[in-house]
Amino acid sequence: MTTQQRYQARGVSAGKEDVHAAIRNNDKGLFPKAFCKIVPDSLSGDQDYALVMHADGAGTKSSLAYLYWKETGDLSVWKGIAQDALVMNTDDLLCVGVTDRMLLSSTIGRNRQQIPAEVISTLIGANQELCDWFAGLGLDVILTGGETADVGDIVRSVIVDSTVIARIKRSDVIDNSRIKPGDVIVGLASFGQSSYETTYNSGMGSNGLTSARHDVFHSQYRAFHESYNPEMEMSLAYSGKYKLTEQVSGLALDYGKLVLSPTRTYFPIIRDILNQYRNQIHGMVHCSGGGQTKILHFVEGLKVIKNNLFSTPPLFEIIQEASGTSWHEMYRVFNMGHRMELYVPEEIAAELIRISESYKVDAKIIGHVEAAENTSLHITSAHGSFAY
Amino acid sequence: MTTQQRYQARGVSAGKEDVHAAIRNNDKGLFPKAFCKIVPDSLSGDQDYALVMHADGAGTKSSLAYLYWKETGDLSVWKGIAQDALVMNTDDLLCVGVTDRMLLSSTIGRNRQQIPAEVISTLIGANQELCDWFAGLGLDVILTGGETADVGDIVRSVIVDSTVIARIKRSDVIDNSRIKPGDVIVGLASFGQSSYETTYNSGMGSNGLTSARHDVFHSQYRAFHESYNPEMEMSLAYSGKYKLTEQVSGLALDYGKLVLSPTRTYFPIIRDILNQYRNQIHGMVHCSGGGQTKILHFVEGLKVIKNNLFSTPPLFEIIQEASGTSWHEMYRVFNMGHRMELYVPEEIAAELIRISESYKVDAKIIGHVEAAENTSLHITSAHGSFAY
Repeated sequence: MTTQQRYQARGVSAGKEDVHAAIRNNDKGLFPKAFCKIVPDSLSGDQDYALVMHADGAGTKSSLAYLYWKETGDLSVWKGIAQDALVMNTDDLLCVGVTDRMLLSSTIGRNRQQIPAEVISTLIGANQELCDWFAGLGLDVILTGGETADVGDIVRSVIVDSTVIARIKRSDVIDNSRIKPGDVIVGLASFGQSSYETTYNSGMGSNGLTSARHDVFHSQYRAFHESYNPEMEMSLAYSGKYKLTEQVSGLALDYGKLVLSPTRTYFPIIRDILNQYRNQIHGMVHCSGGGQTKILHFVEGLKVIKNNLFSTPPLFEIIQEASGTSWHEMYRVFNMGHRMELYVPEEIAAELIRISESYKVDAKIIGHVEAAENTSLHITSAHGSFAY
Repeated sequence: MTTQQRYQARGVSAGKEDVHAAIRNNDKGLFPKAFCKIVPDSLSGDQDYALVMHADGAGTKSSLAYLYWKETGDLSVWKGIAQDALVMNTDDLLCVGVTDRMLLSSTIGRNRQQIPAEVISTLIGANQELCDWFAGLGLDVILTGGETADVGDIVRSVIVDSTVIARIKRSDVIDNSRIKPGDVIVGLASFGQSSYETTYNSGMGSNGLTSARHDVFHSQYRAFHESYNPEMEMSLAYSGKYKLTEQVSGLALDYGKLVLSPTRTYFPIIRDILNQYRNQIHGMVHCSGGGQTKILHFVEGLKVIKNNLFSTPPLFEIIQEASGTSWHEMYRVFNMGHRMELYVPEEIAAELIRISESYKVDAKIIGHVEAAENTSLHITSAHGSFAY
């Protein structure tokens, strides 16, 4: 069975082709190539400003949190899920240049039989804790409320989504329209321990979790029927070899927490970079869904070459080995080592890298952009050469 | 089995006590008694204004739409679901006095095996159609985008949520703090056909759908495993007697569309009312979750008397008869005839009723407010007298 067939059988897709088709004719906003849709600030009516309203969530990572919590009683994984749902939004907004105040609304849909009050109160409490944590980093995230619905006929366990809105001066917007031949690509590591994190981060974002969960973890978890789609072919459910609480050799955490590692925010680094270099940042991509190929949504008539990626961190080595997924496909689903990349003139790259490293986040030039007739992406790594 | 036990066994709750407990200590915003949380306009920084950001969704109504679509191939029910998710928000915002521009973001979580491209494209397309329709009624709803995620391990069919934000002058806010003894309660009918609707509306909102669906519809639908919680006691799943496409006697629609009736917006009526009487509206309640008892969240030390309700429309008679739910409980779950109520001085009531009727929406004084030591609600109807 190919990876594509496995996705299909598990009820997910890597490319969301039909979603892209459905929105193809929708209005693209003020900056059609920008990472997020940007609309006029019709709330205040000020022509100099724009608004970015954005939604994303923890996806099926909450199903893994559910398993881990059921096995261990450790409620802290739910705080991680709240962080995933929030950072998937904050870091999308960073890509258009928003480093200022955001308003946050949270939507939780739960099956009340599986998700008791203590989980709901941890999730809701975590939002306030995360706002306080971001405030400490210098970003005002204001909790406006949200909705928690009991929807056991639709939701097997719990789904956690966030919606944010921010205002930005139009002249401050970074869309990706200035990416051009000669630009270098600075990648910021998704793994390691930054100065603003309290533990090692494996590099996991909130994408590819359906594959990672089933391919990595042991068939004993099939007993938790409420944690997966029972209509999938049973051999695809938890077809891996690891127990959640098994220690990862060489790392001070278990396999469950390796894959549950909360999505890292790049806020402090991007804020510092934009404070000094905003006008020289030609583009920024959050390598979430689509992984290292995400850039292809935002450029035309350019050849993007990534030939100096980070060594694949243990998490993605483990997922690849467990799933047998081709490396070509791994780069299409996972960030593989950096979840944020900046397209910039070569002369400022060293300074961006220095800023990132000042927060103990590794950074380096991972590639560059060339002129070309057709749009393409070329990845060369220790695992081979791949064209997209 | 009591109604409460049935809810529990089906994985839902009517009162969401644990959610209310979880948010008890959260900041209540600028107007603690208002129907929605209202925060300072920290986006523009203008002290005269406030922002209302709000989330709600179609809940398990999407599971019924799924059944109906599977049975009949009728995609139009998905447009109804998009309307439910949107109007549950717009009409909450009406209650704090917002009748102007809103920004909309939509979040869809789907099981790709059950929900193909044509459904996603109908749901996404419906959002734009609904924005156009609202524009025709005089309300700018601006689509900012949204997120559609493949989450088959969490979602059995599809979950549809919306988040909206609006800006309002602080002096224009209607919170419920001015509700006082002597106020009359004007109820606006949830059923019938308004001048801005194209068919009969049964009065269904987007609450109580888990009960209504299982209690009304026939056990043959148990075959659609993906439409309900398989962990519930099987006798509770689709324990009713009606087929989806069976005609309702006396009404020009079938039982499926009776219960799927898209949530009516009261926008044009409330806009006209506020244009003339904003300062005399002491409070407004959208009788969504909590039904006729929702007002109890917003008053203290008042006795609310509802003794002249609309005759129970056919939909709720059918649900009550099918489920055997006590009438006391029916008023706690369903709107039972009016989904919007205004607390106002008696002298303007006739004029409000005239405005509503000008849109062919029945309206009348359904009760009044008295001074009292303790907060209470008293409903007297043809079905009996009930205290809350």
